[in-house]
Amino acid sequence: MKTSPKRLLLGVEYLGTAYHGWQRQTSAPSVQGTLEAVLSEISAHTVSTICAGRTDAGVHATCQYVHFDCHNPRPDKAWLKGANTLLPDDVSVFSVQEVDDEFSARFTALDRTYTYLIHNAATRQGIMSKTTTWIHHPLDEKRMHQAAQSLLGEQNFSAFRSTHCQSHSVHRFVSEVSVKRYKDLVVFQITANAFLHHMVRNLVGSLIEIGKGDQDINWISELIKSEDRNLAGVTAPPNGLFLTRVRYPAELGVSDEIRYPLYLDTNFASG
Amino acid sequence: MKTSPKRLLLGVEYLGTAYHGWQRQTSAPSVQGTLEAVLSEISAHTVSTICAGRTDAGVHATCQYVHFDCHNPRPDKAWLKGANTLLPDDVSVFSVQEVDDEFSARFTALDRTYTYLIHNAATRQGIMSKTTTWIHHPLDEKRMHQAAQSLLGEQNFSAFRSTHCQSHSVHRFVSEVSVKRYKDLVVFQITANAFLHHMVRNLVGSLIEIGKGDQDINWISELIKSEDRNLAGVTAPPNGLFLTRVRYPAELGVSDEIRYPLYLDTNFASG
Repeated sequence: MKTSPKRLLLGVEYLGTAYHGWQRQTSAPSVQGTLEAVLSEISAHTVSTICAGRTDAGVHATCQYVHFDCHNPRPDKAWLKGANTLLPDDVSVFSVQEVDDEFSARFTALDRTYTYLIHNAATRQGIMSKTTTWIHHPLDEKRMHQAAQSLLGEQNFSAFRSTHCQSHSVHRFVSEVSVKRYKDLVVFQITANAFLHHMVRNLVGSLIEIGKGDQDINWISELIKSEDRNLAGVTAPPNGLFLTRVRYPAELGVSDEIRYPLYLDTNFASG
Repeated sequence: MKTSPKRLLLGVEYLGTAYHGWQRQTSAPSVQGTLEAVLSEISAHTVSTICAGRTDAGVHATCQYVHFDCHNPRPDKAWLKGANTLLPDDVSVFSVQEVDDEFSARFTALDRTYTYLIHNAATRQGIMSKTTTWIHHPLDEKRMHQAAQSLLGEQNFSAFRSTHCQSHSVHRFVSEVSVKRYKDLVVFQITANAFLHHMVRNLVGSLIEIGKGDQDINWISELIKSEDRNLAGVTAPPNGLFLTRVRYPAELGVSDEIRYPLYLDTNFASG
């Protein structure tokens, strides 16, 4: 007797360094392909996942969500303990819950938050080179924060859209954005309903120019108005970028806290 | 006209993951080999380095010191900027100073501090797997701290010595040791004049058993008295281990602060 399929929502964390991005590819390792191989093994059938936000090569996620359908009964611990045993050490599952058939990790999501970590110091460091972007020129994070405020609201973000972007709409709604400094770490954080391809990295590239003093504070606002990708700064490297939160309707009970990478969340220095 | 050689002291940071330890090897990548290739290129002659503390495969250093002799005049920025441009992104130089001919990064050092980072949570994470050791069983860090206090002073550490240890003496002087928790991160930190081979990882392996409640608090003290490596816990993995400080006589002006990896030192959560 066949049981009806269960739709499951998994919280997934990964270091993107070794992967050619989230999306499954035939000839290169991807996070999706790696995860689906393990979920298929546990399910005993081929599993296809839908994620909340596709990340590019080298980009990390502390808080990716995926949904998939499992046609065989499995205990919850098969997903948390089982998947984490089978997955490589740079991918882990941090949560699992059953959702109804109409739920989509992508379309049910209310918004996404990305965090970009810049190591701003004269000399580069060697431990976190894959999980930060090093900028040796001193950055004025207050200028960057002020400039970033012009991103708020529903706007046409064509100026920060990759030429490969396949989105039908160029409008996105940004609800929160900040730039803060913690010693040598400058942290850019942005929440929007969704993002265009390369949008966060393109924004960071332009904000760095403002932080260096090479562009005026109102440059972001001018770039938005221009709708011209050729005028904005370069695309910042993937190393510093993390998908750190996806929010769903409250009744689903998914955590709405930003997940930071281990170390950042330990409040170590004050302990 | 030949100038007299200059002896230089460099501060070096590295992620040990990709290296078969500090020590130069003929058939495997080492941090020493990687660094000496770059220093030789800048010096325009073959450079041999002496380090403060040889680290094993997979062990990291935020604060390694090395000395070497350069027979050609080079500006200071050749070492900091030049070396950091030529080195791979998992090795960096953070300080350079001239020292006198009798100085040795190894023998002039007064003591070394190692920091061991344990991620103690039910579910493993994916971002920092190479720079922490995951223990899912809850650890009582207060028990571990109390047990570790019996390491203080000059003692015979045979019970925590690798069978491959080549040291003539089995005595070491431990001046500071602590175990503290910061959320899911349990941090073991120890300062001694020097360490036997695998001593820190062997200590951590035994302290984990005490933290789990599998051994009594006085077990460390009993192990020291036994002088028997076969009785102690397993060697903890290299992932969580960092060389974080080397102290030299004050007149040399070398920083005596513990260097933590980026992220840990940012006081992020309280900002």
